[in-house]
Amino acid sequence: MSLLVVGSIAIDTVKTPVEEHSDLLGGSASYAALGASFFSPVRLVGVVGDDFPESEFQFWKSHKIDTKGVQRVNGKTFRWSGEYSWDLNTRETRSIALNVFENFKPVLPETYRQTDFVLLANIAPSLQAHVLDQMKRPRFVVADTTREMTKETSLVKAGRRIREMGPRYVAIKKGEHGALLFGDNEFFSCGAYPLEDIHDPTGAGDTFAGGMAGYLAGNVKKVTFTDLRKAMIYGSVLASFCVEAFSLERLRNLSMEEIAKRYETFKLMSQFEVPVS
Amino acid sequence: MSLLVVGSIAIDTVKTPVEEHSDLLGGSASYAALGASFFSPVRLVGVVGDDFPESEFQFWKSHKIDTKGVQRVNGKTFRWSGEYSWDLNTRETRSIALNVFENFKPVLPETYRQTDFVLLANIAPSLQAHVLDQMKRPRFVVADTTREMTKETSLVKAGRRIREMGPRYVAIKKGEHGALLFGDNEFFSCGAYPLEDIHDPTGAGDTFAGGMAGYLAGNVKKVTFTDLRKAMIYGSVLASFCVEAFSLERLRNLSMEEIAKRYETFKLMSQFEVPVS
Repeated sequence: MSLLVVGSIAIDTVKTPVEEHSDLLGGSASYAALGASFFSPVRLVGVVGDDFPESEFQFWKSHKIDTKGVQRVNGKTFRWSGEYSWDLNTRETRSIALNVFENFKPVLPETYRQTDFVLLANIAPSLQAHVLDQMKRPRFVVADTTREMTKETSLVKAGRRIREMGPRYVAIKKGEHGALLFGDNEFFSCGAYPLEDIHDPTGAGDTFAGGMAGYLAGNVKKVTFTDLRKAMIYGSVLASFCVEAFSLERLRNLSMEEIAKRYETFKLMSQFEVPVS
Repeated sequence: MSLLVVGSIAIDTVKTPVEEHSDLLGGSASYAALGASFFSPVRLVGVVGDDFPESEFQFWKSHKIDTKGVQRVNGKTFRWSGEYSWDLNTRETRSIALNVFENFKPVLPETYRQTDFVLLANIAPSLQAHVLDQMKRPRFVVADTTREMTKETSLVKAGRRIREMGPRYVAIKKGEHGALLFGDNEFFSCGAYPLEDIHDPTGAGDTFAGGMAGYLAGNVKKVTFTDLRKAMIYGSVLASFCVEAFSLERLRNLSMEEIAKRYETFKLMSQFEVPVS
C-alpha cells in the first residue's frame, strides 16, 4: 500500500567539523520519502520554488515517489544552513530562509485522499493537521513531533504522557542511543546501528520515520506492536545509512540487499538468549 | 566460583532535586559486591575506618560476601557528598574526604590470591594494578575505568580503540541509554530497563559491573561473547533496581525472583523477530 508523506523540502548547506557542502537536497519530507520508498510507493506532499532542480523530480520518479502533491511555485525553495558541534551531537542553525515554504498550505490531490498510511514528517503541527483534515479515514498515521511536547525529564514518563494525549503508540528517537517504543503495556527498546564514521547526521530522524512508516505501509495490513518493533529496526537501518554521507547521497545508491544485511546484523547485536548463529 | 571485588567503600551524602540523605553506605566496591553476590560468592577487598558500622559486616556476611580482605584501620571512613542535577543525568561532588582511603594499599589475604574471577571496581588504576600483581593467574578480569581513556567522540571508535590496548572485550556503560559490548568482530547493544521514577543514580554503574562479573563467576567456566551478552543484561537488571532507592536500600531486599522476572522483561523489550509471547 502507498504511504503519503508531507513535510518540508529544502536546499541545505551543512558544515561539520570536517567538511562543508552547499546546495544539498534536504528537508524532512525529502529524507522521509526516500527512506520509505524502499518499502512502499510514496505520495509526496510539499512545496518547492522555481530554483529547485528538475533532476530531483526525475530521481523521485525513479524511486516510485509520486510528486503530484509537490507544488512548484514562483520564488525560492526553503533554504537551511546548519553547523554541527565537534561531536556531531548538537547543531546550530546558521541561517534559515523559509521562502516559498512560508505560505505553504498543503493541498492534497484528489487521488491522495484515500491513502491508508500517512507520515506527517516534521513540520508545524498546524500543517500536519491541515493534511489530516483532507484525508478520508487513513488507517495508520505516524506524526513526527518535537521533544518539547511534555515537560518530563524521564523519557519513559514522556512516552506514557504522550500516549495519554491520544496516540495508541509512541516512538521516541534517541539518535545515536537508539529508540524506544511504547504501546499498551508493551515496551520495546533498540540501539542504533554502530557506526565508526558519521559524516552528516542531518535527516537521520526523518529517514528513521520514513523507513518505519514505509515498512508498515508496504508490509502490514493491521498494525500490531510486533509489526512496529520490526518497523523501528528498519527505520534504524535506514537512518544508519543516511548519516554515512552528506544529504541523501548514501540513500540514493542504497540497495535492498544492503538493507537486509544490516537488518540481520541488528538481530545479532540485540539478541542475548535465543541461539546466536 | 568466587569473585574478588576491590574498590572503594564509602559513607555518602546524596542530594537529588527531591530528597537528601546522609550516612549512606556507598563506594564502588559496596555496590559491585552486593550486585555480584546474587550470583556468586564474593571476596571483598577495601578499607574502612573505625567509624564504620559493624552492622554492614553482618549484612555482607549474610550475603556470602567474605570480608577478610576489608582492612579496618584507625581513622574515618572515606566520605563523599554529591548533588544531582534536575534531570539526574549529571552530578557535582560537594565534598570529598578520602580519610583512611588516602593511604589504602590493598593487601590480598592468602586465600584470595587464587580467585578465578576478578572485578577491579572503579578506583585508581594503580590500585587496580596492585591487586592484579598479587593474584595467581585469574581466569577473567573485569576492570571498571573512566570514559577519559580515549579522546574519541564516537563510542564505537572508543570501544575499538580500548580493545586495541589489550582487553579482549570492552563494555561501555551508557547509563539510561543502556550499554554496548565489543568483541572480536562481535557487537552487542542493549537498552536500559525503562523506569518511571529514579530516586538515586549513585552506584548504578558499579552495580552493573558487579552484576555482570558476578553472573560470569557464578555461571560460566570459559567466558564467551554469548555469556557476556547475558551477563550484561543481568548487570542492567541489577542497576535498574539499584536506582529505585537511595544507596543500596533496594538491593538489600532484592530477591532472585525479582531479578529473574525483570530479566524476562528485558527479553521481551529487545526482541523483534523471534515470536514474542
